[in-house]
Amino acid sequence: MFTTSFTIEWGDCDEAGIVFYPNYFYWFDCAFQRLLRGRGLSQRELRKRFGAVTPIVEAHSDFKAPARYDDVLDIEITVQRAGERRFRVDYRFSSKARLIGAGYEIRAWAQLKDDGTMKSAPLSEEFMSILGAAVQDPVQEF
Amino acid sequence: MFTTSFTIEWGDCDEAGIVFYPNYFYWFDCAFQRLLRGRGLSQRELRKRFGAVTPIVEAHSDFKAPARYDDVLDIEITVQRAGERRFRVDYRFSSKARLIGAGYEIRAWAQLKDDGTMKSAPLSEEFMSILGAAVQDPVQEF
Amino acid sequence: MFTTSFTIEWGDCDEAGIVFYPNYFYWFDCAFQRLLRGRGLSQRELRKRFGAVTPIVEAHSDFKAPARYDDVLDIEITVQRAGERRFRVDYRFSSKARLIGAGYEIRAWAQLKDDGTMKSAPLSEEFMSILGAAVQDPVQEF
Amino acid sequence: MFTTSFTIEWGDCDEAGIVFYPNYFYWFDCAFQRLLRGRGLSQRELRKRFGAVTPIVEAHSDFKAPARYDDVLDIEITVQRAGERRFRVDYRFSSKARLIGAGYEIRAWAQLKDDGTMKSAPLSEEFMSILGAAVQDPVQEF
Repeated sequence: MFTTSFTIEWGDCDEAGIVFYPNYFYWFDCAFQRLLRGRGLSQRELRKRFGAVTPIVEAHSDFKAPARYDDVLDIEITVQRAGERRFRVDYRFSSKARLIGAGYEIRAWAQLKDDGTMKSAPLSEEFMSILGAAVQDPVQEF
Repeated sequence: MFTTSFTIEWGDCDEAGIVFYPNYFYWFDCAFQRLLRGRGLSQRELRKRFGAVTPIVEAHSDFKAPARYDDVLDIEITVQRAGERRFRVDYRFSSKARLIGAGYEIRAWAQLKDDGTMKSAPLSEEFMSILGAAVQDPVQEF
Repeated sequence: MFTTSFTIEWGDCDEAGIVFYPNYFYWFDCAFQRLLRGRGLSQRELRKRFGAVTPIVEAHSDFKAPARYDDVLDIEITVQRAGERRFRVDYRFSSKARLIGAGYEIRAWAQLKDDGTMKSAPLSEEFMSILGAAVQDPVQEF
Repeated sequence: MFTTSFTIEWGDCDEAGIVFYPNYFYWFDCAFQRLLRGRGLSQRELRKRFGAVTPIVEAHSDFKAPARYDDVLDIEITVQRAGERRFRVDYRFSSKARLIGAGYEIRAWAQLKDDGTMKSAPLSEEFMSILGAAVQDPVQEF
């Protein structure tokens, strides 16, 4: 499990004084990028080392309680396989130990081709291992 | 059904030249607000007339194909009940008749109290009717 | 002069119920891209036809009055030279004929090189002409 | 002087792989809010203690070099008076000691009235003192 935090800024909230919800997905993506960087895999390195990218296939979130500016949002991430060519990133986010919500992303593993396009490919075992993904117990394919 | 369109702007895309996915949820919310406005219900009017707001409970999207800047994104919206106190807004988005993805929001109906807090309440029939929601055939409560 | 409009969305406003100011710069950029597209010059076309991009050098805005969600923001754009290698895009934005503010961007003209880097270059006369820039009366170099 | 840092995220960059410039203003605002919080003055506290807000009057930035995702952006802030009713916040931002740009905001001091509107007022000496603003040597009124 990887954890990271964000401070909710004034500009992240709407007139109701609570987080404008699309920002949670921005933080999901940021948290995932931080996880990658924390394992030495910036987007740049990912492309160089694996010739691959991780396009989004599905995103979901449940919202349990509102969060406000100045709140610190703590996000816990876990990664697991989701079939041969996809993985799932789970996000659980809270503030001062109060659960704000939980969501996930399904991402594909895609090889970059010489012409700049990309093609879905079987998940790299090495990549999954770096992310600490549960490899023995895949969830059902979506 | 309500339809609206957005032009994907340069700043909406990431380095891969495709839409940074949290923006889709921004457009979901914008499209819902446009639907409300199109029925004479700005957020301001909604509060004045019904004393209510529609907080997000759940958001989801599947992404089928990438979209790029200069693309026009056409969004179709349908609204239906999702139990006694919630409704579901479905979004189907395409560009040049090519499906880009589909998603939904679950929103609660909440009455604003005098102290500024809000409280979940049974859906206003009038509100549902204004949105053209299918009232006879509710989906299962989530 | 080119004019374009945006509807201010719920998510564009902060807790004070007024536009979170960085969004004005987002609209500046969007408005400039719309101007380019309106003249047949998407970013894609700009690169293909001129092998050039227009990086930002300076951005400025004065804010005279607040704007709120549901307000329609009308933006007037004018383009003029700002020296040999730069041009200035002026934005004047109002809502219901009430001036909200005015700002500008200074952008450079830069040729893309084969290695992906870019290099400042003298402004293309053709490009300036397409944008309807006042070519006879350049402003002082900044 | 107050310094703070942000990591540039994937979603903050455009297709050219460099920061989409309106984000710099978002970071300006975030940095200012962090400065306030660092002095015990969240927006909430500011309203409670001073009954005041600090609306933006003017924003400006010069951009000297591009920054990319994974780059850490270090921002230095200084505050000074800008007349009787306004103050100026200067931002100097760099990455790995390389100057990326510099900008400023002019903000007004405004008292909140009972009806929710606000009214420009002479700067609070206490507020200026808390921000460490140079009070003896005001810049010219803009």
